[in-house]
Amino acid sequence: MTADDSIRLFVKTLQNLEGWMDKAAAHASAKSFEADTLAQARLAPDAYPFARQVQAACDQAKYAAAYLGGKQAPSHPDTEQTFAELKQRIQKCLSFLESVPARDLAGADDRKVAPPWLGGKWLRGGDYLAHVAVPNFFFHATMAYAILRHNGVELGKMDFIGSLPLQEG
Amino acid sequence: MTADDSIRLFVKTLQNLEGWMDKAAAHASAKSFEADTLAQARLAPDAYPFARQVQAACDQAKYAAAYLGGKQAPSHPDTEQTFAELKQRIQKCLSFLESVPARDLAGADDRKVAPPWLGGKWLRGGDYLAHVAVPNFFFHATMAYAILRHNGVELGKMDFIGSLPLQEG
Repeated sequence: MTADDSIRLFVKTLQNLEGWMDKAAAHASAKSFEADTLAQARLAPDAYPFARQVQAACDQAKYAAAYLGGKQAPSHPDTEQTFAELKQRIQKCLSFLESVPARDLAGADDRKVAPPWLGGKWLRGGDYLAHVAVPNFFFHATMAYAILRHNGVELGKMDFIGSLPLQEG
Repeated sequence: MTADDSIRLFVKTLQNLEGWMDKAAAHASAKSFEADTLAQARLAPDAYPFARQVQAACDQAKYAAAYLGGKQAPSHPDTEQTFAELKQRIQKCLSFLESVPARDLAGADDRKVAPPWLGGKWLRGGDYLAHVAVPNFFFHATMAYAILRHNGVELGKMDFIGSLPLQEG
């Protein structure tokens, strides 16, 4: 699982997340409530609501692609309140992820990654993926899924996983 | 992020999960309820309860180590009902993961992985990690965390992530 595999996995999962939001919107419509109320739903009073989970998943993917691909991360302020705005946020993130090609991620496992929040310390690129980007990304993506699931949206595991690159023969 | 990095990440996260269960047990004791009632808690009536999320996280890690390390996966029937039994299940899983050394996982990204549920089709080892094992493992681990968090257990993101292999200089 190369650094490029990780970034492509984030791309696929964010695309899957757009699909969960479509199912949530259809559920809201069928039940005659505003889908945007789900953007503020949360699993505990002091846990992030859905909107913040989506923003955080996007940021984990964005910073991983930037740090490992040797790019400047674009600024995406956390201002989104509605499903339409959150989908735009996902699209902005996907555009950036798709601007970082596999060749820029080659050898990224051995790159030095020193985000500001580490205060001068750093992580090997492979360790940044394994200990920061991958678990944090999936934490927030799953929390977003869990909030919708808890609110009655009919999602199943294949909505989370999406398609598999199966081989034959 | 090598195949060995992925298996070590599963080990660390399962150890973190043991810590979430300890906090859940302390919370239950402080509130004078049986911690084992949390083993059957779930986020939706048709979603897996906590016990099944823990079993599924263990199985994703176990099968990844087996398929990628060229080992037979030990059988771990899903019989656990209590926190004590679930902790034993995690320990059995960890023992197996630790029995698969890095050298057996070298080159695993290019190995052919053909689990029975793919009905004769297969995945490259790197694709199995990226599209099956990693997202499924973190899905179930995060769902387990989310169930405890939703039930009032005081968990924070660092309980999920654990320690980082920081470098200096």
